[in-house]
Amino acid sequence: MPAAVDIKQSSETLPLLLLHRFPSFELSFFPVLKTKYTVLDLHADPPGPSFPILSKSVRVMLCVGPTALTSEDLDRYPAVECVVGSSAGINHFDLAACRRRGIHVTSAGDASSDDVADYAVGLALDVLRRVSVADRFVRAGSWPFQKEYTLGSKVSGKRVGIVGLGSIGLRVAKRFEGFNCSIAYNSRKIKSHVSYPYYANVGDLASNSDILIVCCALTNETFHVINKDVMRALGKTGIIVNVGRGALIDEKELVELLVRGDLGGAGLDVFEHEPYVPEELFSLDNVVLSPHNAVITLESFAALEELVLANIEAFFSNKPLRAEVELH
Amino acid sequence: MPAAVDIKQSSETLPLLLLHRFPSFELSFFPVLKTKYTVLDLHADPPGPSFPILSKSVRVMLCVGPTALTSEDLDRYPAVECVVGSSAGINHFDLAACRRRGIHVTSAGDASSDDVADYAVGLALDVLRRVSVADRFVRAGSWPFQKEYTLGSKVSGKRVGIVGLGSIGLRVAKRFEGFNCSIAYNSRKIKSHVSYPYYANVGDLASNSDILIVCCALTNETFHVINKDVMRALGKTGIIVNVGRGALIDEKELVELLVRGDLGGAGLDVFEHEPYVPEELFSLDNVVLSPHNAVITLESFAALEELVLANIEAFFSNKPLRAEVELH
Repeated sequence: MPAAVDIKQSSETLPLLLLHRFPSFELSFFPVLKTKYTVLDLHADPPGPSFPILSKSVRVMLCVGPTALTSEDLDRYPAVECVVGSSAGINHFDLAACRRRGIHVTSAGDASSDDVADYAVGLALDVLRRVSVADRFVRAGSWPFQKEYTLGSKVSGKRVGIVGLGSIGLRVAKRFEGFNCSIAYNSRKIKSHVSYPYYANVGDLASNSDILIVCCALTNETFHVINKDVMRALGKTGIIVNVGRGALIDEKELVELLVRGDLGGAGLDVFEHEPYVPEELFSLDNVVLSPHNAVITLESFAALEELVLANIEAFFSNKPLRAEVELH
Repeated sequence: MPAAVDIKQSSETLPLLLLHRFPSFELSFFPVLKTKYTVLDLHADPPGPSFPILSKSVRVMLCVGPTALTSEDLDRYPAVECVVGSSAGINHFDLAACRRRGIHVTSAGDASSDDVADYAVGLALDVLRRVSVADRFVRAGSWPFQKEYTLGSKVSGKRVGIVGLGSIGLRVAKRFEGFNCSIAYNSRKIKSHVSYPYYANVGDLASNSDILIVCCALTNETFHVINKDVMRALGKTGIIVNVGRGALIDEKELVELLVRGDLGGAGLDVFEHEPYVPEELFSLDNVVLSPHNAVITLESFAALEELVLANIEAFFSNKPLRAEVELH
């Protein structure tokens, strides 16, 4: 009986799935995909002689990580009806092109929201309380010889401003409430279901915050939403944490303000030109630098795998997609 | 008029205050003390010729940081009636000797509890989500060249076991509730005012925890309360955070378990033989090391200054002391 199942599930009868990714991006569940689908992968070694033909009829594509999805990509795969994304932010997809073609798009939805919110709080704690600095100090063997210490700044009770009160921002708020912090936020629209003060203007929010958490989506409207004026409003004792996308902040200005001491500190998981990180930051003790790690947990990957597999299956069985993106 | 005030507040008329400290320990409010008291300081440069005589009649002493207070110290200052401590933990005082002499003892009380609780959560987040590791990775310039990353472990939803549910432990609990973590605790006695599950045995608590936060007082009973068996019960995926005192944990066993991979990780702000830190820990990525920093914030120091000054003044004006320690 197992032999019969094996034959039935041969690659000839399995539905087609296109993997769209950087060569370096591997996900732990790629092997699982191959048991269920005929996986077309331009970066497989080799992609196979049938790739050019099969890719013309593939109906669903899985976009992995930050790989851009352009209108030209979609031209190459004209039969695609569904794009399954594997990240919460999908600013790297040409959504207008998807909409024109009537393609359904899904994101990672909430699969990693807890982890990103946890990481945002971790970065804020680390910047204000100098945890990484302390760890460097001890590992360097300096403690027995140097009595000086860097005074941290208290986290409890501080004013937290959240830019983008979506699934991540709401979780950030809940966590900081446990620290007796006051919460305020900025977003496109006021959220009627929360009682936190709303600021229509990010600069006003920054003026009234000690900790600014940036976790909104990157769109044309939010590009460099954290500009020089906003950071100046946050001021010399304010800190900024970015777990959204690098280009939400004017990075050049951020670096200048940090180097001059005109901004209190920064916890950065994302950068404008990843993996490039401005080297001026490497010598500063009031910044914590992280290589886009906010979603990188075992649990987050498992939740993502579950969601992605469910969405591919839902597509083929005409069931509702989860975390589908509304295309305007 | 100012001249008259200056004359009146000369050192002859100001009450005596003994400063008991390591030479290296300075606090920002020492200058303020000198405006209000004739400060006797064995480590001042010089202590002054009147020190031997005045120290026999000094009635109140301020003990700074971790400086031990022994029965022999008290023999040298026979008129002392009140010992004002400046730390939350006062295991370095000979409390039995204080009790025999009828000396009142105060601690830092709650002045730093928020900061210590914040730091405990920060260490847990850092260990599980590898924040310091990430920061080292980026600062080393490795990101553009190395695609590998260390998978973190999710913080949200984990089981937090708190050893010592005092003013710090309760605050730790509240913070982790914001992360949807479940809370349980161990302490000398069950606390009737909280609903968290109580474990009379620390090993049982560890068996049912993913994150063990150690924040109880160090006493004869709690010396090495976290022994090998407790850490084995916590297991290969469990982590331990110590913001109490180093000797609460059997450090030799802790290091062995960490090196062998039999414990998931550790965030350590305190050590058995500070400032000595076991060098075996320096090469591990699943530990975060910190030089007894949990109370080191501007705000904490300000609160401590306020409390210490208030207690010295209360002593001289026969008013009730704050954060007085009950001596059994």
